[in-house]
Amino acid sequence: MPEPLPVAFTLSATEGQARTGRIDTHRGEIRTPAFMPVGTAATVKAMYPEQVRETGADILLGNTYHLMLRPGAERVASLGGLHDFMDWQRPILTDSGGFQVMSLAKLRRMTERGVTFRSHVDGSSHELTPERSIEIQTLLDSDIIMQLDECISLPAERKEMERAMELSLRWGERSKAAFGDQPQRALFGIVQGGDDPELRARSAAGLRSIGFDGYAVGGLAVGEPQEVMFRVLSEITPELPSDRPRYLMGVGKPDDILGAIARGIDMFDCVHPTRAGRHGHIYTRFGVLNLKNARHKDDPRPVDETSPNRNCRRFSRAYLHHLVRTEEILGAMILSQINLSYYQELVDGARQAIAEGRFEDFAAATRAGWSAGDLPLTEGN
Amino acid sequence: MPEPLPVAFTLSATEGQARTGRIDTHRGEIRTPAFMPVGTAATVKAMYPEQVRETGADILLGNTYHLMLRPGAERVASLGGLHDFMDWQRPILTDSGGFQVMSLAKLRRMTERGVTFRSHVDGSSHELTPERSIEIQTLLDSDIIMQLDECISLPAERKEMERAMELSLRWGERSKAAFGDQPQRALFGIVQGGDDPELRARSAAGLRSIGFDGYAVGGLAVGEPQEVMFRVLSEITPELPSDRPRYLMGVGKPDDILGAIARGIDMFDCVHPTRAGRHGHIYTRFGVLNLKNARHKDDPRPVDETSPNRNCRRFSRAYLHHLVRTEEILGAMILSQINLSYYQELVDGARQAIAEGRFEDFAAATRAGWSAGDLPLTEGN
Repeated sequence: MPEPLPVAFTLSATEGQARTGRIDTHRGEIRTPAFMPVGTAATVKAMYPEQVRETGADILLGNTYHLMLRPGAERVASLGGLHDFMDWQRPILTDSGGFQVMSLAKLRRMTERGVTFRSHVDGSSHELTPERSIEIQTLLDSDIIMQLDECISLPAERKEMERAMELSLRWGERSKAAFGDQPQRALFGIVQGGDDPELRARSAAGLRSIGFDGYAVGGLAVGEPQEVMFRVLSEITPELPSDRPRYLMGVGKPDDILGAIARGIDMFDCVHPTRAGRHGHIYTRFGVLNLKNARHKDDPRPVDETSPNRNCRRFSRAYLHHLVRTEEILGAMILSQINLSYYQELVDGARQAIAEGRFEDFAAATRAGWSAGDLPLTEGN
Repeated sequence: MPEPLPVAFTLSATEGQARTGRIDTHRGEIRTPAFMPVGTAATVKAMYPEQVRETGADILLGNTYHLMLRPGAERVASLGGLHDFMDWQRPILTDSGGFQVMSLAKLRRMTERGVTFRSHVDGSSHELTPERSIEIQTLLDSDIIMQLDECISLPAERKEMERAMELSLRWGERSKAAFGDQPQRALFGIVQGGDDPELRARSAAGLRSIGFDGYAVGGLAVGEPQEVMFRVLSEITPELPSDRPRYLMGVGKPDDILGAIARGIDMFDCVHPTRAGRHGHIYTRFGVLNLKNARHKDDPRPVDETSPNRNCRRFSRAYLHHLVRTEEILGAMILSQINLSYYQELVDGARQAIAEGRFEDFAAATRAGWSAGDLPLTEGN
């Protein structure tokens, strides 16, 4: 068997800080800026893998925390890895598990060595260290592996932000050593440091000197206002190597994504589009619609009759309102598909606009569409 | 606009009591014996309409009770009818609403005129009469309309079975008058009479003299053993006109369907395949698998690698077990699809076998497959 192709990042165009390009992997190309749907427990909720691909997704994110608990990393490995397990043959990025340990697990205990915790599912004990996180992600056969870090919420004391940032740097170094030489996979470091510019810069410098295949910005979208997130991004992306992909973790809403692309971010993931869909909210070129709202119950119009997405054209808002109100699974299926499709339409639009040097206009026109709001009701409705 | 084609039933072959043929409607052909997936509230749960069609379904069943409560029959009509509402352009049969009023609604009050009840959703008051049921089903733009009847559970006193049967006959007569002349739709009468041969025969004779486009057998699969159901079917189908379709309501499991086809039934509906799928059970050529069971958690084999259904070939049992255990929506989606697909494979096999005069062998071979059970576990698993 020939060696699988190494992971490689190529920039093709920039406009201000915004960039477009591609990450090549032996499982396929990832066009950037990229939005990665979240396949929490080896499934993007309420979607077949081919439906996810049809929205335009090049890569999925898998959650190490969920997968290590159920079905277990060793089990996934014995079943051929995560791609075969869930029948998604394109690239997968896995997180380190650290974020969900902090948000979901019980009885956490953090030491220099790592974190021990009890499963939120069955109370069983587990340990996650930088080395074990790399091992799990390798067992899953992930294409892009994240270092274990400590992510704290904002606002926080400077001392606490500094401690977590420095621990994350030391864990980054151990992660790099544990990862070793695996050119067919990428290892990404994670910048921490809260909202403090000096801590963020020290974190970036430390990660650069370790040397990673890509750099993530962690510790944002954890309670701070959007302007703080944008300020941190504006400060931090110039500190990161321009020839490596930059990934903003866990972000966000469409407007966050546009603003982060303008500040030099290449990759995103977020549960928001699928979760919002399961709660009756959809994202469209005209902003957000809450389909639970009674105003939709007699509305014969489709979501957006000029959308490239068939689900936006074929079903009436009245029907989608009905599915949401009756809590039918098909409602979650359609609304998740509509949101993931819109997110991909957004990053695809951004990629094309950057390539053609008109990203600023694209972003302005996109925001104007959201502000203009929904189409007016047809007379007689 | 030309008149839509009238509904027409054509038998093409018989073997013993078993029959195969077709019902033509202006919305397409229904091959018989037919299994109708249940689209309770204007959706076959966890399935896109095109996925239902791809399993081989020619016709869906819609529930008048659910649809009259939400979204309401007048609303569906104003939105273009049930076919456009749910984007299923092929035939739809609607039930009368009576069965669910008995099983779901609150504060029911039955009179000669009809039944009043309170919605199980919001407590609102409603009335269902034979005339209103026809009106609702016409508003939904149903292709095959069922008369309102009274269905009682078994075992029951003969007096009670007789009362309900006679009331159902009088309601059948009123239904026929309310239905009027609508050749593009069919109206089916419903045989009642519990497990009493004489009552069943009187019911059939009464319905024949009113004259319907098809005849349903109601009041079975309501608690009686399978042998009682089969005995009633053997007694009743000879009493029904051979040139009209016969529909066994709410049945059943695969073995019930095979036995009823052998006794001259042409049409079936049941929530079982989708409901069982949502609870982790799948039907295959090797019988039933409970995917919740821990024996599947490391099993790399697909459900059935020689199945015509791709979902039976592409995912491991271990993956499906994982989806069921984690209560992922995709599990409900895949398992519902597997079951509906197997049910269609079953009736398609029956149709071909009857056409070729080998139904008895087909039924025996199919039952032998179920009895043989699952494939043996591969060594090492």
